[in-house]
Amino acid sequence: MKTKISLFAMALCTFSLLAQNMNNVQMPEITRINSRKFINVPNIMGYKTLKCDFHMHTVFSDGQVWPTIRVDEAWQEGLDVIAITDHIENNPSKKFVSGDDNSSYEIAKPYAEKKGILLIKGAEITRAMTPGHFNALFLTNTNELDTPNYMNAFEAAKKQGAFIIWNHPGWKAQQPDTCKWWDIHTELLNKGMLHAVEVFNEQEYYPIAFDWCNEKGIAYTAASDIHGLVENLYDLSKNHRPMTLVLATENSESALKEALFAGRTIAWFGHFLAGKEDYLREFFKASIKISQISDKKVYRVVNVSDVPFILKSTDGTQFTIAAFSESTIEIPVSNKGDFEVVNLIIRSNKNLSVKFPF
Amino acid sequence: MKTKISLFAMALCTFSLLAQNMNNVQMPEITRINSRKFINVPNIMGYKTLKCDFHMHTVFSDGQVWPTIRVDEAWQEGLDVIAITDHIENNPSKKFVSGDDNSSYEIAKPYAEKKGILLIKGAEITRAMTPGHFNALFLTNTNELDTPNYMNAFEAAKKQGAFIIWNHPGWKAQQPDTCKWWDIHTELLNKGMLHAVEVFNEQEYYPIAFDWCNEKGIAYTAASDIHGLVENLYDLSKNHRPMTLVLATENSESALKEALFAGRTIAWFGHFLAGKEDYLREFFKASIKISQISDKKVYRVVNVSDVPFILKSTDGTQFTIAAFSESTIEIPVSNKGDFEVVNLIIRSNKNLSVKFPF
Amino acid sequence: MKTKISLFAMALCTFSLLAQNMNNVQMPEITRINSRKFINVPNIMGYKTLKCDFHMHTVFSDGQVWPTIRVDEAWQEGLDVIAITDHIENNPSKKFVSGDDNSSYEIAKPYAEKKGILLIKGAEITRAMTPGHFNALFLTNTNELDTPNYMNAFEAAKKQGAFIIWNHPGWKAQQPDTCKWWDIHTELLNKGMLHAVEVFNEQEYYPIAFDWCNEKGIAYTAASDIHGLVENLYDLSKNHRPMTLVLATENSESALKEALFAGRTIAWFGHFLAGKEDYLREFFKASIKISQISDKKVYRVVNVSDVPFILKSTDGTQFTIAAFSESTIEIPVSNKGDFEVVNLIIRSNKNLSVKFPF
Amino acid sequence: MKTKISLFAMALCTFSLLAQNMNNVQMPEITRINSRKFINVPNIMGYKTLKCDFHMHTVFSDGQVWPTIRVDEAWQEGLDVIAITDHIENNPSKKFVSGDDNSSYEIAKPYAEKKGILLIKGAEITRAMTPGHFNALFLTNTNELDTPNYMNAFEAAKKQGAFIIWNHPGWKAQQPDTCKWWDIHTELLNKGMLHAVEVFNEQEYYPIAFDWCNEKGIAYTAASDIHGLVENLYDLSKNHRPMTLVLATENSESALKEALFAGRTIAWFGHFLAGKEDYLREFFKASIKISQISDKKVYRVVNVSDVPFILKSTDGTQFTIAAFSESTIEIPVSNKGDFEVVNLIIRSNKNLSVKFPF
Repeated sequence: MKTKISLFAMALCTFSLLAQNMNNVQMPEITRINSRKFINVPNIMGYKTLKCDFHMHTVFSDGQVWPTIRVDEAWQEGLDVIAITDHIENNPSKKFVSGDDNSSYEIAKPYAEKKGILLIKGAEITRAMTPGHFNALFLTNTNELDTPNYMNAFEAAKKQGAFIIWNHPGWKAQQPDTCKWWDIHTELLNKGMLHAVEVFNEQEYYPIAFDWCNEKGIAYTAASDIHGLVENLYDLSKNHRPMTLVLATENSESALKEALFAGRTIAWFGHFLAGKEDYLREFFKASIKISQISDKKVYRVVNVSDVPFILKSTDGTQFTIAAFSESTIEIPVSNKGDFEVVNLIIRSNKNLSVKFPF
Repeated sequence: MKTKISLFAMALCTFSLLAQNMNNVQMPEITRINSRKFINVPNIMGYKTLKCDFHMHTVFSDGQVWPTIRVDEAWQEGLDVIAITDHIENNPSKKFVSGDDNSSYEIAKPYAEKKGILLIKGAEITRAMTPGHFNALFLTNTNELDTPNYMNAFEAAKKQGAFIIWNHPGWKAQQPDTCKWWDIHTELLNKGMLHAVEVFNEQEYYPIAFDWCNEKGIAYTAASDIHGLVENLYDLSKNHRPMTLVLATENSESALKEALFAGRTIAWFGHFLAGKEDYLREFFKASIKISQISDKKVYRVVNVSDVPFILKSTDGTQFTIAAFSESTIEIPVSNKGDFEVVNLIIRSNKNLSVKFPF
Repeated sequence: MKTKISLFAMALCTFSLLAQNMNNVQMPEITRINSRKFINVPNIMGYKTLKCDFHMHTVFSDGQVWPTIRVDEAWQEGLDVIAITDHIENNPSKKFVSGDDNSSYEIAKPYAEKKGILLIKGAEITRAMTPGHFNALFLTNTNELDTPNYMNAFEAAKKQGAFIIWNHPGWKAQQPDTCKWWDIHTELLNKGMLHAVEVFNEQEYYPIAFDWCNEKGIAYTAASDIHGLVENLYDLSKNHRPMTLVLATENSESALKEALFAGRTIAWFGHFLAGKEDYLREFFKASIKISQISDKKVYRVVNVSDVPFILKSTDGTQFTIAAFSESTIEIPVSNKGDFEVVNLIIRSNKNLSVKFPF
Repeated sequence: MKTKISLFAMALCTFSLLAQNMNNVQMPEITRINSRKFINVPNIMGYKTLKCDFHMHTVFSDGQVWPTIRVDEAWQEGLDVIAITDHIENNPSKKFVSGDDNSSYEIAKPYAEKKGILLIKGAEITRAMTPGHFNALFLTNTNELDTPNYMNAFEAAKKQGAFIIWNHPGWKAQQPDTCKWWDIHTELLNKGMLHAVEVFNEQEYYPIAFDWCNEKGIAYTAASDIHGLVENLYDLSKNHRPMTLVLATENSESALKEALFAGRTIAWFGHFLAGKEDYLREFFKASIKISQISDKKVYRVVNVSDVPFILKSTDGTQFTIAAFSESTIEIPVSNKGDFEVVNLIIRSNKNLSVKFPF
């Protein structure tokens, strides 16, 4: 008789026999263990790499969850920082849901503190094109942004010290045939009312926006813009939600704010990282450890980050270093070691170049 | 050179090179595929086995999600039927959320129809002990149950043709030292105002309630009573939420109602099924297919259900037939084939007996 | 205090406290449960769909495992039938491993019977090009094929009633610049010494060979040609090994033989099925169940097979029905319902056409 | 139309359309990516923690695989060091397999070097009880141990500088009613011919042997003793094979040898670690990082090792810190912080005690 019954099963047996003497019995084994996912990314350049999602909604605008759920999701998925950015101007649930523009933050903040998630007060300035939609972070009183004239909203945000992001600049609903930077955006930039662009939003990315970030010296961001459940939109067993990695001196609101205004960000979406060349180079170097095995053409490669690296050489050699893995690779004798990392993007049409062995 | 680069990676390469010519680019590969989980349970006794959860909350009482999210969750997890059962009497979100006792149903119904989930109109009569908490299903106007006197609420429910379930009868908040059936429950039963009991609620089960179901001829149910996200409470990669299996002539509201009033239910929680002996026997027989391999003591066992079966013989022989699996087992020559299925419960202190080969 | 300790953990506690009184203690919970994977494919056209791999090696030629391991692997992965096809002519292990050409079969057969795996006696006729490598199945004495002249080997195989498959016809080691059908293959075909071609071998497929199968009326096959561990070559958590599906009257050697000579096969590799149009159409129809939900453009689609179906319409509409899943799809009003199933291949340049709703 | 078709699927489309122009086509996407599992264990006390399995078999005794497969398995699973320990005295495959007692090492060594696995030359002295079975590591010529008298074998091993482990001391086949240390073991110990004991072998552990290790100052080991495939015996998706962690100055044969003779080992099997108190304490401290969240009773706990820790306090408080996870825990006000780590074993009847916060 093969007795491949597990101890677990034996526990169940005992359990059911004992049960008759009890009024109620906890069955914790069917529930999720109270632990969260690790996101493995290296700390680089002396900074801590914070994992942030600065764009999401709740029932206080057109989202489908109570604000505390956004904290639960972020905690489960391993994020450090979130901003709830309910639309200021429109709330399709208003037949049922009241409250003012500060309500979602006020409800979620105490819970976020208990869970150890840094919740930044934010809101979405939601206007027709131009100028479009913008997230303002680090607000003190969102209600002051609820004004008929959009410029007044930007002024109120600036007065509160906000960090302002242009959301989904190539969104078809607003820019159907183009992804254009308008004069108003130059004006906002010049007035200190525009500090970043979403190069990625939800499931969509905007290659042209990469170049704006570089040319205009503004920060790269990526965000989920989630309205329903993160779990239902992204396959979290294989991937993470889109997020902005922020290189901060520590995990605190003031350090985050300093880092954002200094532009120390990397946009992370799917298998792609987009950002300044030097940040991506440092990220790559901190992720990969290479050592030679017995033979001079065979290497052991360790990748300690959750980002895979897809490498391509001019001679056609290409390979993928899987995320968080150890692998061996063989490089052809003739290969000179010049590789492009196809998924590390430093311009809309340019990837990071690296020299092997890294 | 090992070129273990996947086609997927190649697609990404192409993708990034092309991207410069586009305004926005969909990246569907990072999102969840739009498919739902199968729950594998056999149809038995000529009925269709419906997978139902009759107890859950939204922001319209003390839950943390918009009603449509309950439909999304149910769909993802493979359920057929749900009832949203917001508390009639109390709503801690009422500072922000208004609406009446019918609102959550009205919001969720059109979405449920679109997703193919059968949404039953329900509500939770939420009273101090005695009598405790009760779910009323198949309501037509929940507002009529919002009365000071609980008996008036039961009368209104009965008038609307409701199926009424006593929730978490051994809940410590209401019955700290006991799990007692009071006279009022006999009265409700006699008046046709009590048709089922939750033998399992959320993470807790009530062995004593098994015997009530049997003695009094009322239906066995199990429910999640979910307030936050199902995903955060239960480990759905390993298990399903607690649910009631209903043996109905078809997947329709009228067939479900007929089946519930006829008491054709099985409570399923963790690895346990609880219900009438004949239903569990049929379930077991329909799940297991056995064939002999070359040697007379070795069998191939196929289990087409998602329920594992933990078997124990009087001679100490025990084994587990894993859920949805094919396996081989060897039975000792001396074994007479009398087994108890430890996780199929027909009384608080009695499990289903089966004769091998089944 | 959150007491999210599982019963399993509690079992461990008890366990360690008791352990001091025991000499040795079984810890079955760290071992694999003795169950095998289901492969979900429909039975079609009144036949049973047998899952078969007819090409693999052991230490008795240039493989790296004892013959019994091939049975273990097949059992774990859910196969019905295998043939061990050690090279007749060459054995790089012969410094250490002796035995004759029947040894691997003789060693594995009793174990296969005990596990319920149908083991077919086979061997690989391994010759330079032309004619190349061929698997002969249903042999009675493999030693008789060990002859200097290849035609004598074919004659011996035919005399034993063998079913003969041309292996990896486009293998670069033998046909570096082409995938050509030579005169000798016509001769073998005409002499009744060639009954099938591998359209897929290990990780490689041969589109041209599809057309041969169709033109010449011979059977389509796919095989692993595994030498090391199946587990190390294929990612079994996501996929299955390449295999030949055989439509047989029952799971027996005689029924299998009848089905193979009648050409009732489908080659299955990765997400692709290749075979005769009518078999693939029946397979598709038996896999997919469609029902309309509330709205006439929204369908619920159930796929009961482990094959995903990638559909593409002339108007650009395309979607994937995931393997073994239930999903909802919406079809644009303008779409006429003419779809091509991109991964069901009936010619090298032609896929199965289907009409929606199927 | 929901176009949730993945890029992967699009790649497949393109693929099949192009295929007609090719002779053969690689389909790498169905194969396993060439990367291995990380085993997360901390380096402690200034040493590198090597993951070692010193007990396994091949076709050169009664195992079922060619020696190179043992290297493949170790590599996939993330091990650093293995010893192939074929039985010296018996080889059930000898009808087919020849070679001498050094053959398995000689075949596997070049491949191990290429894969970066440290292969130690070893063999199993396989004698009736007493003295039983012993693994000798660091041999130079195994053939010299192939002698009729067992003491001669031990002498030859000692002369070659071997590290000698008593295998499965409580194995029922040799010690059916007891797990006894005989006079011969004292003699071997005194002669410098016994340096360690397997406290765990395959699926079985020997609590009494813990105390021997401590009393006699010999090393704790755990090993798989694998004969078939590791994959088929252990559920590697949830667990690792049993192994010995060795605290060595570096990953080299000489450093390993020094560490073993110095007794710097920890036996790891299932969720258990067994070893000297100070090693386990350092392991625990290096694995766990604790920080307080807003409230003084709530802690964030990070476990960077693949070992879960099951903690139990005298007041009944207990919780599990899951392997490689981040979680929050709440400790009751009344709890004094004295915990026992139930799965860290320092005597047969004693677990590691720790003080919270650690």
